[in-house]
Amino acid sequence: MQVKKLGERGIISMIHRMQSSPPPGFVGIGDDAAVLPGNTAGWVVSQDMLVEEIHFRWDWATPDQVGSKAAQVNLSDIAAMGGRPVAALTSLAVPASTSSEVLESLYRGMTRAFDPLGVVILGGDTVGAVDRLVLDVVILGVPADGGPVFRRGARPGDRLLVSGRLGASYAGYMLLSHGHVWPGENVDDRSVLTAHLEPEARTRLGQAAAPWVHAMTDVSDGLAAEVGELTQFGAVGVDVRLDRLPVCRATQAVAARYGTDSWEWALFGGEDYELLMAVPPSHVEQVMRAGREMGVAITDIGVFTDAGRTRWLDGEDERTLDGDRAFDHFSR
Amino acid sequence: MQVKKLGERGIISMIHRMQSSPPPGFVGIGDDAAVLPGNTAGWVVSQDMLVEEIHFRWDWATPDQVGSKAAQVNLSDIAAMGGRPVAALTSLAVPASTSSEVLESLYRGMTRAFDPLGVVILGGDTVGAVDRLVLDVVILGVPADGGPVFRRGARPGDRLLVSGRLGASYAGYMLLSHGHVWPGENVDDRSVLTAHLEPEARTRLGQAAAPWVHAMTDVSDGLAAEVGELTQFGAVGVDVRLDRLPVCRATQAVAARYGTDSWEWALFGGEDYELLMAVPPSHVEQVMRAGREMGVAITDIGVFTDAGRTRWLDGEDERTLDGDRAFDHFSR
Repeated sequence: MQVKKLGERGIISMIHRMQSSPPPGFVGIGDDAAVLPGNTAGWVVSQDMLVEEIHFRWDWATPDQVGSKAAQVNLSDIAAMGGRPVAALTSLAVPASTSSEVLESLYRGMTRAFDPLGVVILGGDTVGAVDRLVLDVVILGVPADGGPVFRRGARPGDRLLVSGRLGASYAGYMLLSHGHVWPGENVDDRSVLTAHLEPEARTRLGQAAAPWVHAMTDVSDGLAAEVGELTQFGAVGVDVRLDRLPVCRATQAVAARYGTDSWEWALFGGEDYELLMAVPPSHVEQVMRAGREMGVAITDIGVFTDAGRTRWLDGEDERTLDGDRAFDHFSR
Repeated sequence: MQVKKLGERGIISMIHRMQSSPPPGFVGIGDDAAVLPGNTAGWVVSQDMLVEEIHFRWDWATPDQVGSKAAQVNLSDIAAMGGRPVAALTSLAVPASTSSEVLESLYRGMTRAFDPLGVVILGGDTVGAVDRLVLDVVILGVPADGGPVFRRGARPGDRLLVSGRLGASYAGYMLLSHGHVWPGENVDDRSVLTAHLEPEARTRLGQAAAPWVHAMTDVSDGLAAEVGELTQFGAVGVDVRLDRLPVCRATQAVAARYGTDSWEWALFGGEDYELLMAVPPSHVEQVMRAGREMGVAITDIGVFTDAGRTRWLDGEDERTLDGDRAFDHFSR
């Protein structure tokens, strides 16, 4: 069925059907606005918009993957604040020719991400679009113990830790833009395609790390840009060890195929949705332990300094990065 | 300058420049997510998306008008909940060819709506778009005294009150779709074009009415659809007096020009952003007085009944409405 026939009420009741009732005190879909219960800890709120042909393509990703990614990208922002996600709002602009199966699958992707965390979709807006689908997700969360954690706060002597692996999402993007399709032809391709199409936010790690870190952000725009955020562009210095960046074997294999150094993708690729943390030496072990308990690798890739600038070190050598290569949605 | 050159950071710092600092306890633009201070009264949250060529056209509206309307449409939802707006988040998808002047004007329109109310833009997302601009606004508010007020709650005997005038926005839409342009050639045209292009939410009235009403909604989709919401589609009945609908002289004049009964526009036109209220007889005077103090007309257009259905009365006659004509963004 086309969305044109389903109508806004049809879409809303579909969303309604696909999720459990809001917890007590919440009022969700069906009124002029959603209602959140009172709380005394404050809220953290994130918002991310995905646009067809800019952030996703239907010949690359299934609707379920697009919905899931829209949710995870937002959950990653909440994790980076040391927040626990509670509720979501979603705005959707859909071309009238979109089938309701596509829409249902898109929401299923979102609820697949939200349900295990107890996050409920409280409302939002559904409108028509001329030809391209746009999805805007807002998540409201509460600070976990130790949160909210900001980008600002790193101090000289803090270790620079990063979760998971870097560059894999861009490796997946490279495969897709060279005509490869999900799920890929071998285990390496599948691994990096999954990183790009089905990223998973470090939701639990962000909450567990919150009491132990001075500053935190997620790696959505590439390591180079995010290191800039954590140093507040020079307010504090940092030495980053390029030779320690966690780049997985699959990413290295794909990079070799395209004749690129995989660390370029780690630095400039973007969309990794890992957590980047400034952690005082006395608390590094707590963060490492949290990672171990969740099966998430945590890598020490550098140290904050009072040098007032970022040094990119490869063994004994300092490298110069081309600063204009940071990921930017407008130029890519 | 094109957005492509301005870049996301350029846009964010432009938004930053254009508004005052967030109040204590709030953390706004510049981190992974916004932070709201704790409160014990709960929050009301609304979200509305505007899509170029669906909700607005650049040959009809200035960027300032589009920004202002995006804000007002959302403020109207908060007003309809009996809420006091506090903070906003805005997501924007912009084609790379958009000039920064357009963008600045768009935000100026939003801040023009928000500033007098003390509403701060805390964050959001700015991304690229292929060819059409999409603007998604979220407003967080707190319930005013007596709020939150829901659509459900009308009881037999309650009076049906409506603020302002109905149908004027559709009259403006008719003029625009017949080649007339803002600000119009005479005082009638200007009046209805203003209603369509620069609606003003009943923000203060919604808060003042909250302690006195049983149920409330805003008239965004035409009176017929909104009466359906207040009766919960038959859970309670209502007699609506068609001969009492507040249709202004300008709307009547424009309707006459196109050979239409103006009450059709009041019933099915949509986008009036007036408040529709179910008010017990003992409290009607309080709501009327609040309207008088704010210079907003309040009209008594009917009474809720235990008849279990809606009767549309024109003097002594009952009229049958064509239910399929309710405003729907997908079919218009």
